Amino acid sequence: MEAWITELQKELPANQIMTALADRYSYSFDASFGEYLPEVVVQAKNKFQVVSVLKIANTYEIPVYPRGQGTCLSGGPLPVHGGIVLDLSQWPEAINVRADDLTVVVSPSTLTANINKAAEKHGLMYAPDPSSAHVATIGGNLAENSGGPRGLKYGVTKDFVLGLEVVTPEGEIIRTGGQTIKNVTGFDLTKLLVGSEGTLGVITEATLKLIPKPPRIQTVMAVFDDVRLAGRAISKTLTSGVLPSKMEFMDQACIRAVENFQPAGLPVNARAIIIIELDGHPEALKIERKLVEEIMRDLGAKDTVIPESEEEAVKIWQARKQVSPAIAKIKPTKVSEDATVPRSKIPDMMDRMQEIKEKYDVEVVVFGHAGDGNLHPNILCDKRNQEEMARVELAVEELFQAAIELGGTLSGEHGIGTMKAPFMESEVGEAGLSMMKRIKDSWDPNGIMNPGKIFAEKGQKLVLRSEP
Amino acid sequence: MEAWITELQKELPANQIMTALADRYSYSFDASFGEYLPEVVVQAKNKFQVVSVLKIANTYEIPVYPRGQGTCLSGGPLPVHGGIVLDLSQWPEAINVRADDLTVVVSPSTLTANINKAAEKHGLMYAPDPSSAHVATIGGNLAENSGGPRGLKYGVTKDFVLGLEVVTPEGEIIRTGGQTIKNVTGFDLTKLLVGSEGTLGVITEATLKLIPKPPRIQTVMAVFDDVRLAGRAISKTLTSGVLPSKMEFMDQACIRAVENFQPAGLPVNARAIIIIELDGHPEALKIERKLVEEIMRDLGAKDTVIPESEEEAVKIWQARKQVSPAIAKIKPTKVSEDATVPRSKIPDMMDRMQEIKEKYDVEVVVFGHAGDGNLHPNILCDKRNQEEMARVELAVEELFQAAIELGGTLSGEHGIGTMKAPFMESEVGEAGLSMMKRIKDSWDPNGIMNPGKIFAEKGQKLVLRSEP
Repeated sequence: MEAWITELQKELPANQIMTALADRYSYSFDASFGEYLPEVVVQAKNKFQVVSVLKIANTYEIPVYPRGQGTCLSGGPLPVHGGIVLDLSQWPEAINVRADDLTVVVSPSTLTANINKAAEKHGLMYAPDPSSAHVATIGGNLAENSGGPRGLKYGVTKDFVLGLEVVTPEGEIIRTGGQTIKNVTGFDLTKLLVGSEGTLGVITEATLKLIPKPPRIQTVMAVFDDVRLAGRAISKTLTSGVLPSKMEFMDQACIRAVENFQPAGLPVNARAIIIIELDGHPEALKIERKLVEEIMRDLGAKDTVIPESEEEAVKIWQARKQVSPAIAKIKPTKVSEDATVPRSKIPDMMDRMQEIKEKYDVEVVVFGHAGDGNLHPNILCDKRNQEEMARVELAVEELFQAAIELGGTLSGEHGIGTMKAPFMESEVGEAGLSMMKRIKDSWDPNGIMNPGKIFAEKGQKLVLRSEP
Repeated sequence: MEAWITELQKELPANQIMTALADRYSYSFDASFGEYLPEVVVQAKNKFQVVSVLKIANTYEIPVYPRGQGTCLSGGPLPVHGGIVLDLSQWPEAINVRADDLTVVVSPSTLTANINKAAEKHGLMYAPDPSSAHVATIGGNLAENSGGPRGLKYGVTKDFVLGLEVVTPEGEIIRTGGQTIKNVTGFDLTKLLVGSEGTLGVITEATLKLIPKPPRIQTVMAVFDDVRLAGRAISKTLTSGVLPSKMEFMDQACIRAVENFQPAGLPVNARAIIIIELDGHPEALKIERKLVEEIMRDLGAKDTVIPESEEEAVKIWQARKQVSPAIAKIKPTKVSEDATVPRSKIPDMMDRMQEIKEKYDVEVVVFGHAGDGNLHPNILCDKRNQEEMARVELAVEELFQAAIELGGTLSGEHGIGTMKAPFMESEVGEAGLSMMKRIKDSWDPNGIMNPGKIFAEKGQKLVLRSEP
């Protein structure tokens, strides 16, 4: 037995340390690509155990990969260099709503959807709503700065974090930010840590902001015969004075996939639909609903649909949530992207996706959070087909290039992880990447926290193919 | 002539470099305390000039203090160790609204109020509205992460910054973030730089987020006979489902000071007033206005006032803006604080302020952004009176302590600068401060960027008294 494993066994209960191959195998993958076996899995259940693990890992220079429920789409929790997977999902869930402060304090293992449920009991809302909210932990959301449909109006995870408790790579407990809405006391470590993908420390507690829950919501679905017209309608709506809470796009392939998977009555002959949610006072919603219907028709929608009941509205949104599982049925492998462009460039990005699809003869379906330029082109393929996957790799690379050329970014909400690390320099430049690396090196001199993520290794390339 | 000054003269036009005592004296102070003479003032007008200045300064290890209009309340631009004041206020103002993207690109010298004016032409809004918006530059707002009344609903400067162009302390130009609403590409350098008080680099361009301008606003003024009741009304309103755009507090001393200074018809016999602004659709505003009036009366307001015309509403908000100049007439010196507490602790903080006022026999008036717990207790005094100023220093220290004990923070929006640096460790802890310092040292190994700010020097204390 290695000395560092013996040390871990001295500090933590035996049933929280796993070394058997079957256990380690369960932690070797996430929802992205690649499989890597860790040497040990540690299930930490409180901050002192995290401190113990990090101190030992730092002393012996063993990599540590924090992990929640493993739903990451960019490889965040993958133990690419062996070492320790630090599973935080077994930590007891804790949700402490402070209604008078409009805040909530949560443990890292809390499922995101449960935070919103707890807030609703007080007439409040935790706005970030990643599609994985029912299965993913807030710890993972914080590490990746998760988005979601409501990001359009309310912002993403980062916009709702007031303070953190964090264990540094050297095993010190620090508190960042606090409990107040405004705070300019020194550098904003909170917003640096949120979205740092577990490369700077382990988040052990978070204080989140809540807002009053809007009194009513109103759904509108707009049906288009032309994808480009839909793209224009999206980019134009937001300059018309209305700020919807959600504005989601689905192309024909997605519509049909959902109708085959779990029929919801979507218009299968439409080339694209836009599903919009407005929220606010009932009186204001009546006015905004009419306005949105007018805009959609003016910009070429052949139809707009207003659900006749709340159940019908729920059904439409349920259909949107089913896109990801539904398209996964079409082909064995799904490469889910989230390159994001400025809103006015949505129609151009749609053209580029069409070109890329034809050029590399790959199957691309598109859906996503169109209102903030954050589309999800998904390439459907079969990872056992090496020749096809080689074309997919080229298509993905060109997709990234297109987004950057249009003034956009590699990732709107999924993170960089292992998958996009090789493309970082093309977006942020050599000097920009070096300033990020300086922070990393100053916080984690031994490089133990989630190595192999964000920062590419020399010569690293996008690889979606299995090892030959 | 020193070698580094000769180097500067080679790189920049002669009329942009000032070494005369009278010129240097104009740059020796800001809106806070203390006077420090720089050796040189450089007026940079483009990013390449900033690069030249920083490269020379870094080579010769000369301190550089970026400065906008010098309205800082915490000592941000003070040249505490001599060296170069880098004046960015003479840079040509540039405001490039990209309406379809809901963004605007600005130069650092742009007056903040002008950004909102430009946005309004497109039906859009730049929400952050520091009280100094008409005289302060966006560069200063970015450095200090300025707040303002509308922070309650919309957030502060940081929440509206999508991307930056920055010159690093070693003179490299980097771009952070971008033009998209969602972006999780690597560490969030944008939000690290905003609020870093010029200690990590010089911001030379910013891409800001715009939002649709709300169609209508509605002002409500609530009049109280009891300060503590007003405090409770503030902390309770926000859990009643309404999110006002502004919620401002003024105590009797502020009301009377304004009425003496520029009469606006405020109720001079009230112990406190709360001024609320709601925004949204006219129909929704009618409902919310009634709701807010009910809440205020239920919680003890003796009266609520609805302005009869837009002019009257403007007059009330104008009165709120006059508080700072009006109270400055009462005594020669005004120590403006912005310690901030969780919203539920506003009544407790008001009690603590009353105790401190009595204990140290100092004149304290209170106003501010009560809706987000960000009150501005102002101590009115005379800086020529050494004995009084000694009491003021103790009162300020105890005010900070009270805010931290109540779960709050040293600074909600004014920044740490020189004034609050000695108190940093009491809020963020030794380990937390050390993690901030690591970032500073890794970015600025020679310590040239705005030294003496945020991080206290050994033995540094709060000093409001002039040199004896």
